Amino acid sequence: MLISRAEAYAPASMANLGVGFDILGLALDSGGDTVCAEWSDTPGVTIASITGDDGRLPLDPTKNTAGIAALAVLRMADVDRGVSLRITKGLPLASGLGSSAASAVAGAVAVNALLGSPFQRSELLAACLEGEAAVSGYHADNVGPSLLGGILLITGVTPDSLFALPVPERLVFAIVTPGVAVPTAEARAVLPQTVSLKTMVHQTAYAARVVDALHTGAIRPLAAAMEADIVVEPARKHLMPRLDACRAAAKAAGAYGLVISGAGPTLAAICDDRAVADRVRVALMAVYDEAGLTCDARVASVHGRGAHVLSTQIEG
Amino acid sequence: MLISRAEAYAPASMANLGVGFDILGLALDSGGDTVCAEWSDTPGVTIASITGDDGRLPLDPTKNTAGIAALAVLRMADVDRGVSLRITKGLPLASGLGSSAASAVAGAVAVNALLGSPFQRSELLAACLEGEAAVSGYHADNVGPSLLGGILLITGVTPDSLFALPVPERLVFAIVTPGVAVPTAEARAVLPQTVSLKTMVHQTAYAARVVDALHTGAIRPLAAAMEADIVVEPARKHLMPRLDACRAAAKAAGAYGLVISGAGPTLAAICDDRAVADRVRVALMAVYDEAGLTCDARVASVHGRGAHVLSTQIEG
Repeated sequence: MLISRAEAYAPASMANLGVGFDILGLALDSGGDTVCAEWSDTPGVTIASITGDDGRLPLDPTKNTAGIAALAVLRMADVDRGVSLRITKGLPLASGLGSSAASAVAGAVAVNALLGSPFQRSELLAACLEGEAAVSGYHADNVGPSLLGGILLITGVTPDSLFALPVPERLVFAIVTPGVAVPTAEARAVLPQTVSLKTMVHQTAYAARVVDALHTGAIRPLAAAMEADIVVEPARKHLMPRLDACRAAAKAAGAYGLVISGAGPTLAAICDDRAVADRVRVALMAVYDEAGLTCDARVASVHGRGAHVLSTQIEG
Repeated sequence: MLISRAEAYAPASMANLGVGFDILGLALDSGGDTVCAEWSDTPGVTIASITGDDGRLPLDPTKNTAGIAALAVLRMADVDRGVSLRITKGLPLASGLGSSAASAVAGAVAVNALLGSPFQRSELLAACLEGEAAVSGYHADNVGPSLLGGILLITGVTPDSLFALPVPERLVFAIVTPGVAVPTAEARAVLPQTVSLKTMVHQTAYAARVVDALHTGAIRPLAAAMEADIVVEPARKHLMPRLDACRAAAKAAGAYGLVISGAGPTLAAICDDRAVADRVRVALMAVYDEAGLTCDARVASVHGRGAHVLSTQIEG
């Protein structure tokens, strides 16, 4: 039985979330990328099409995160047949929602399915990281959650350094992405290279508090702990238009806190009720509207499942 | 009904524990101080006696942590009667087992009981901190656990910044204190003033991992996470005789890890079985014996209860 076509989905993800800089990431149940992989007579990986990117992403498979991840899976499996990919972006680019990671993950999962699934999902991590590295650096904080789902504590770049944390049942986010780009490289460049020991102690305390709150399921302390970051947000704040106004509007509408998602400009307001989160979403959109900025907004919970195969077709 | 005498006990405690520098502390069920408080005709606080300190602690109540804490409680209660204290030390001094904190806590709890317990236990925190500050700085990482018991995450110096973490049922320590003094001030002085951002990320990741492991009750990952500290132990290691040899011996005897307790020189080996911990205790003693150093060693679990009143006597 040979598979002729496989389609995979990988969800959006949010990393950092305030005090969890470079160590925390979660998958979202709204927004994600789809990659369809088929055998091709052209050797290596070809990208047949990309939709939903307004023509901004490279079709060159060696420069496209899905292409690189797909190639890496073929290499891992020692397969030298050609594969063609069709990529459907369901996420804004360079927005802090793990767009490059979702493409890499969907590419790897689709090709693995096309090959008859020789690899476990966690075994695809290295291939996904290779794809992600082309755009955002070799880091698992988006790739990990997009691949595996849930909320992850990330202590390294191997499967055994990703730890699933409990997902509080009522946790829901109002997520808003203003129409400005914040390249990850620029967001990295503004960070301090060193921090004081006292600051380190503060960050460790609140990172610990985030994990404690996830285990106890207490959303309000969770949000307060996430917001307690005194290192990353102060350094990046100027890259995020209207952050203070958004935080004030979100809290006035019932959110417990607001943090930058990934390297921004997406902001995530932390809520414990879907109806409240929807009001917060509207309030956040109003802030950008008033500032004359376009934005994309959604309400999302944590995606427990992570990347998965949507469909496979058997060779006839 | 007037109380004429009250006796209180406060347990030993271990702070820091590797990656939990300045944010983690726990109370121990082995070792602690007892303070007996009685009314006296001398105004203010008098220290009638100290036993178990080899004459090293000051009888001047304004320089003694129990005396200062006792005075602070009298001041809080607006009582100007004289109080006399008898202090029984059950802990080695300047050893990293919270000796100064235990005296302060026992002093505060004893005087509160003598007054008829006008204050809740957590309301005594400020008085205990005042006592501790005279010796070790204004920090709750020993005083908090000694007062309240259990394992605490400490984000500040007020009762609402102390968070009880779960205590894994099988968690037990082999604890060894070599006969060398490491003054807290010296142990502070050797710490770096700044760390790199990358180091901060590492420390936050493993502090988060410690809390996760406490919640899941997994002792081996807990020990590995505690040991992952790359900031404090490297800086202080030279003050701790035979640390590497102790770690190797502890692990060979069945411990999952070994960390410095507080500012040292006490070392704590993390185990999940009391019989194993006892073997580890013997192995640690052998290391110091071989090096020609005296030492004090014990096996201890977490003290869930914290400081408490041992006895009160009603005025006849």
